[in-house]
Amino acid sequence: MKKILLTGIQPSGKPHIGNYFGMMKQVVDMQDEYESFPFIANYHSLNTIQNAETMRENIINVVLDYLAVGLDPQKVTLFKQSDVPQVTELCWILNTITTMPYLMRAHAFKDAEAKNKEISIGIFDYPILMAADILIQDTDVVPVGKDQQQHVEMARDIAEKFNRIYGETFKLPKSLIKEDVAVILGTDGQKMSKSYGNTIPLFAEDEEIQKLVMSIPTDSKGVDESKDPEECNVFALHKLFSSEDELGEIKRRYVEGGMGYKESKDILVKNIQNFIQPLREKRKELENNKEIIVAEILKKGGETARERAEEKMKEVRAKIGIF
Amino acid sequence: MKKILLTGIQPSGKPHIGNYFGMMKQVVDMQDEYESFPFIANYHSLNTIQNAETMRENIINVVLDYLAVGLDPQKVTLFKQSDVPQVTELCWILNTITTMPYLMRAHAFKDAEAKNKEISIGIFDYPILMAADILIQDTDVVPVGKDQQQHVEMARDIAEKFNRIYGETFKLPKSLIKEDVAVILGTDGQKMSKSYGNTIPLFAEDEEIQKLVMSIPTDSKGVDESKDPEECNVFALHKLFSSEDELGEIKRRYVEGGMGYKESKDILVKNIQNFIQPLREKRKELENNKEIIVAEILKKGGETARERAEEKMKEVRAKIGIF
Repeated sequence: MKKILLTGIQPSGKPHIGNYFGMMKQVVDMQDEYESFPFIANYHSLNTIQNAETMRENIINVVLDYLAVGLDPQKVTLFKQSDVPQVTELCWILNTITTMPYLMRAHAFKDAEAKNKEISIGIFDYPILMAADILIQDTDVVPVGKDQQQHVEMARDIAEKFNRIYGETFKLPKSLIKEDVAVILGTDGQKMSKSYGNTIPLFAEDEEIQKLVMSIPTDSKGVDESKDPEECNVFALHKLFSSEDELGEIKRRYVEGGMGYKESKDILVKNIQNFIQPLREKRKELENNKEIIVAEILKKGGETARERAEEKMKEVRAKIGIF
Repeated sequence: MKKILLTGIQPSGKPHIGNYFGMMKQVVDMQDEYESFPFIANYHSLNTIQNAETMRENIINVVLDYLAVGLDPQKVTLFKQSDVPQVTELCWILNTITTMPYLMRAHAFKDAEAKNKEISIGIFDYPILMAADILIQDTDVVPVGKDQQQHVEMARDIAEKFNRIYGETFKLPKSLIKEDVAVILGTDGQKMSKSYGNTIPLFAEDEEIQKLVMSIPTDSKGVDESKDPEECNVFALHKLFSSEDELGEIKRRYVEGGMGYKESKDILVKNIQNFIQPLREKRKELENNKEIIVAEILKKGGETARERAEEKMKEVRAKIGIF
């Protein structure tokens, strides 16, 4: 039997190629090996998105984005968190066996506190809701970056504590640390991030790709000079979009001299365009019937996830005596 | 139309006459004037009762206790909190618009913190769950002691904040400060409380009442000496169990001299026994079919409360865009 994998997706607006290689591609890549439950973490997003129209649009768009890059709703259970309100019930129950000092050790809370933000209870309590998301589906593995590993450990701790108090109930989940994806650099050489305004949108049009790639700063070495590929932001992107053969060839010509930045950028533009074109067309095609497509997929996924959660909660309620 | 009144009941074990006069009697007295929603706060109780058998028994017993003292399930909607899991969903949603510093101002949290307890998130977040309990039923009034008034104010604040962010959704609840019930003194002259071991159980047998009343300490004034009724623990209990005429007569004989403490206690024993006897018999009668009676009442109450809550949540979900 396949292992159960759960992964939360933030409905946070238009994705860029950094999001694709850092997260979306991996969700898609894992859909055959695992019984996958990717879900749109909209209860969580309420901490930042407090507008119904934005929330609705972001949820619809994130589904279309994932379908466009190959997530197959026949293979995975794609659902939105709010279609499984049972997780908020379990979150409350876990709240009653978790102490404040324990939860205050969460990195995310400490970071927010250090920035002296007026942290919402929803931010503070999020590791417990995440534990509920994980435990309610009998999850085996949760793919996370290193920075999120603590949350999975907390889910384990809380599951162990519940099992100790009320008897064996929850499976203990494990982190699946994502292979080191090199940091994707943006058009200014910093990490690609919306907040730096240096992104290449995942579904960009050809002209936009052209314009963005051309704006990548380089040094001023001439065509014939030898260049260090590892120092070049253009080459960093080649690694994501060029075949191994092509990459070797570009590298050789960088080092030996003979490839100017203009030519390097032209190749990159072509490769990114070739990569994005089918995704963008798929995305547009889906857009035509988006309300229906998304409603159907989320309805089916929501039902499956909710039924599993309700089964688990029957067991939990019996264990704690709230019958 | 009657105003909607909501009141939470802790399923915390055998009630004593202090619980009766301090809380239970008022819940019963208000059942005609208001559309009442008394509920058993079992999600809350998970903070202290972490054993399924105790939880189950306490829930069943608290229902029988209230029925025995006259709560009429035809007049009120008696339900258990966990039959309305929608409150945990609303609690989460309200968590995302409430800040940590705001919630840390709660008296209950400060008290617990002052005692340096390892406070659970369930204790910390309880004012928000209580706000959800209140707001989800479109509650007009919440009867509270002065010490709980802050919680109703918090529910109001949070409702106002939600309405401001997402548009008019929640009715603003008001506190109904309970008339000053004199502190009920226990058999040792301190406040009657299980933790002092000085209680008279509400459904005590005649012999137990006799024994407990006889153990009340008095001074050593002789029968003929003048006594100050306000200094006497026996007289304090007469106020609860004697008719006005009888009380006047006892008071006169205390002051003028002529009533010894033995006689005063004998009168009190008889009056408490007369008061408790019909309640105790009703309680025993209910005990015979307790599983069925409780299941039926809670099923009906739970359905009514849950349907109302679900209606409200449909509105809330539309407002926040989680469709």
